[in-house]
Amino acid sequence: MTTALRFSLLLLGVSFSRGFLNDLFDEEEEAERVVQASKYGSLWPLPQKVQLSEVSFKLNGVSFKISDAKESTATPSCSLLQDAYRRYYEYMFGSFKRQEGRKSRHAGPSDVTELQVWITSSESDCDSFPSVASDESYELTVDQPYAVLKAPKVWGALHGLETFSQLVYEDENGAKSINSTTISDFPRFAHRGILLDSSRHFLPIKVLLANLETMAMNKFNVFHWHIVDDPSFPYLSRTFPQLSQQGAYHPYTHVYTPADVKMVIEFGRLRGIRVIPEFDTPGHTQSWGKGQKDLLTPCYSGSKPSGTFGPVNPILNTTYDFMSQFFKEVSTVFPDAYIHLGGDEVDFSCWKSNPDIQKFMEQQGFGKDFTKLESFYIQKLLDIVATSQKGYMIWQEVFDNGVKLKADTVVHVWIGGGANDEMAKVTGAGYTTILSAPWYLDYISYRQDWQKYYKVEPLNFNGTDEQKKLVIGGEACLWGEYVDATNLTPRLWPRASAVAERLWSAKEVTDINDAFNRLSVHRCRMVERGIPAEPLFSSYCPREYRGV
Amino acid sequence: MTTALRFSLLLLGVSFSRGFLNDLFDEEEEAERVVQASKYGSLWPLPQKVQLSEVSFKLNGVSFKISDAKESTATPSCSLLQDAYRRYYEYMFGSFKRQEGRKSRHAGPSDVTELQVWITSSESDCDSFPSVASDESYELTVDQPYAVLKAPKVWGALHGLETFSQLVYEDENGAKSINSTTISDFPRFAHRGILLDSSRHFLPIKVLLANLETMAMNKFNVFHWHIVDDPSFPYLSRTFPQLSQQGAYHPYTHVYTPADVKMVIEFGRLRGIRVIPEFDTPGHTQSWGKGQKDLLTPCYSGSKPSGTFGPVNPILNTTYDFMSQFFKEVSTVFPDAYIHLGGDEVDFSCWKSNPDIQKFMEQQGFGKDFTKLESFYIQKLLDIVATSQKGYMIWQEVFDNGVKLKADTVVHVWIGGGANDEMAKVTGAGYTTILSAPWYLDYISYRQDWQKYYKVEPLNFNGTDEQKKLVIGGEACLWGEYVDATNLTPRLWPRASAVAERLWSAKEVTDINDAFNRLSVHRCRMVERGIPAEPLFSSYCPREYRGV
Repeated sequence: MTTALRFSLLLLGVSFSRGFLNDLFDEEEEAERVVQASKYGSLWPLPQKVQLSEVSFKLNGVSFKISDAKESTATPSCSLLQDAYRRYYEYMFGSFKRQEGRKSRHAGPSDVTELQVWITSSESDCDSFPSVASDESYELTVDQPYAVLKAPKVWGALHGLETFSQLVYEDENGAKSINSTTISDFPRFAHRGILLDSSRHFLPIKVLLANLETMAMNKFNVFHWHIVDDPSFPYLSRTFPQLSQQGAYHPYTHVYTPADVKMVIEFGRLRGIRVIPEFDTPGHTQSWGKGQKDLLTPCYSGSKPSGTFGPVNPILNTTYDFMSQFFKEVSTVFPDAYIHLGGDEVDFSCWKSNPDIQKFMEQQGFGKDFTKLESFYIQKLLDIVATSQKGYMIWQEVFDNGVKLKADTVVHVWIGGGANDEMAKVTGAGYTTILSAPWYLDYISYRQDWQKYYKVEPLNFNGTDEQKKLVIGGEACLWGEYVDATNLTPRLWPRASAVAERLWSAKEVTDINDAFNRLSVHRCRMVERGIPAEPLFSSYCPREYRGV
Repeated sequence: MTTALRFSLLLLGVSFSRGFLNDLFDEEEEAERVVQASKYGSLWPLPQKVQLSEVSFKLNGVSFKISDAKESTATPSCSLLQDAYRRYYEYMFGSFKRQEGRKSRHAGPSDVTELQVWITSSESDCDSFPSVASDESYELTVDQPYAVLKAPKVWGALHGLETFSQLVYEDENGAKSINSTTISDFPRFAHRGILLDSSRHFLPIKVLLANLETMAMNKFNVFHWHIVDDPSFPYLSRTFPQLSQQGAYHPYTHVYTPADVKMVIEFGRLRGIRVIPEFDTPGHTQSWGKGQKDLLTPCYSGSKPSGTFGPVNPILNTTYDFMSQFFKEVSTVFPDAYIHLGGDEVDFSCWKSNPDIQKFMEQQGFGKDFTKLESFYIQKLLDIVATSQKGYMIWQEVFDNGVKLKADTVVHVWIGGGANDEMAKVTGAGYTTILSAPWYLDYISYRQDWQKYYKVEPLNFNGTDEQKKLVIGGEACLWGEYVDATNLTPRLWPRASAVAERLWSAKEVTDINDAFNRLSVHRCRMVERGIPAEPLFSSYCPREYRGV
């Protein structure tokens, strides 16, 4: 490891702080100001089992190959893998393209000349979509003359390629090198997501793709696409085109066409990332109302309609006709087995003001309990979506309000920083759950807040082993009030990387100093790959970001 | 103004918030969530006197000209103006280049066909550097067929060009339009600065230039270049090349060569921006010590040197020989009349530990008062710099410690949020001062913190009129711990724009709602000009940022 150590030291300089800021740092942070080499190099997230030796090999960019192992069940027609080979070759060797005709020095005895990728399961999953049950494990052996990456499915192979690329470093002469290594790896949690919000600000496709790319570098596997909300409706529906025609910020420049959506899904699939869309109702639907007459509840001021609208109108049959058709389309457009149905933060004041709603409440015997009306709506919606053979995710309020849920429902916990009580409740009731409460990355503050995200332990609640098994993962959420194409990417990375390691690596991986050292180099790697990941603290990258 | 109003409404959509965030907003912010048209369009910072009429004219991009008025004292050889004409033509008409040979429709009776720029003073300052005394005033009349921009000096003309470009809008057919307007304008404060820190993170030249460009869009006129500090010494000194050779993060990729520095200065000059370098001593000098033996004080642990170093060693003659030579070079390289000498945050612990320093303290009769030693050093440094005919700026501690200052010294107030007491003290002692305390933009928080910066009133301290006249302006500071090329620009803009208006516009310009409306459009204009200025809140720009 000495060469790797030296490399890491080269990568980042010693850092200092202005004195007056010292007072603002707690001692822990003080201690982490100087980047040092981790014994794990720049691996991020840290694999489950790593054995790094000091024996180092060279990689010759002209002749190095990534190829299917003979025994692999993936064929050369598996474009997912071929695409990944090309991508990782470029990450490792940059513009130094492999030229077949170019005269190359013969492979030396200390060269690793090839990475063989061996899909071991009879079904490689090459043409499938990833799912919550996908096998993402892999085993990587770096030795001379071949490195071998074994994985049951392509999903593990993708992760293994990323890991392999993270093992490559430049020695003091700039020569690409890699140490003899054995890695056996798999994720701790099956659901490792990022929520982006394309309603509060429209996010151009280029931004979405760049972040999917970065998710892959961090082994995230779920893009939770909070695609529409109050401010705008950029999803272009084939069935109801007027929704975006009227509800998008702009009907042509600020929409996602069916082709755009398809591209995002396929780009994600090629990186082992599921795309779960969220169409949040009955609240957060102001933009829906612009293109769909009578969908929202008219609010009253005294005895007259005020001209403003509230949540989806739950008392009209037309509402459910619309939802049936709309979610039928959504179920077809998005291949993932799950749809996120939202259900959070329903404001009752408009419902309360409306005499028709009042009458309905009376008829149904709901009294003054509007959570019952909310549950009435959600229940009908869930039944509608269930007919499309899709599973659903919902925000925690739906569970809190006692709505009857299908057994395979995923409850999304988001309220309160720790949320341990809620996690205990949800899993106690037997539901699968994912955690986002401590990972609202739209909240920013001075200092290294990635440490706060890193220190979260998702299973740190009172519950049985059975309950803990119901926690399938979590999501880092970057809500869109304050982010758009100008600042989203550096605000998300490397802060979300902290969540990535928490959700992938073993529970015992909690050394914050080692994390700082590895993450510092990992963030420079993202920068070198063209991603404007912001700095952790005073320091530098050998190759700084080249954009503005 | 109706057309302008309509345009502004088109520019920004209605915005909403997630309900649960509502609780986090104070009512004032709630009220500002919906962008509305300002009667001042998108002018930022607001000129001193504006008369906008409802009469609108068209601008024909093919034939429109910006040219010197016949009476102007600036000649066609004034490349500062010619360069600005080209720049603003492109901002207004984009890639729609003027083609002399192209068949153009004849100018209609409602067209403004030309902007005539008239420098009225006998000395245009075309080839000068801007200074604190530069006349930046201008008068702009937009009428048919000519618009006229009158300014005593080129500096006012530059501001007037920016203002003219801010008046241009697209009507409902996309036609470039401008309303009949009369503006008389000048800055409230002469010193309107941005501090960037290229030591904690190296900032590539491209980033510096992009931000100088954006400064001009906001009528800032001082780039305070905090060029070196503890972490790194990127300034390549001709006299002492080992300073960057040893002290930069990297001696080739992370330095500013003499040619780089020259480019920054000229780029600034062409935009009416002074470049004031800061070489902070005796603290904040760890990086200096790497290339200059014996410059820093050896710290002691008990009776032995510990191997670490403290502030500049103030008891050696070699220190002052070095400083004389070094600042002689700096005085030549940087044309501005002022140099910032720092002098903040001197940590006495190392001095205290050193037996030679202890002896010197005794000899000088300083007792145990290390501020006396600090003052001893600073006094000698100021005398050295004074011989170079330069004025100097210093951080407030130097004043606080009672160092004897030249009458034209500028004291830079930075401690404490309000800092009103310090402002009263400094000006009470008769010194010129600039304010930064409330404008440390490196401190970030959730919500629209630009409002906090905007609400600052720099003269809100107890003092006579004479004292208030000594406040020549302020600076927004973006220290470098957490920013580099990946995130600096969106973090600075439009937050610094709030400071820009406070320092330029009349004291009475304090309507935060109107500011929100204008600033929202101004930020979209920066985005359209290629600057990733971050959003104020949920909304959109007609042309979103195209980078990643």
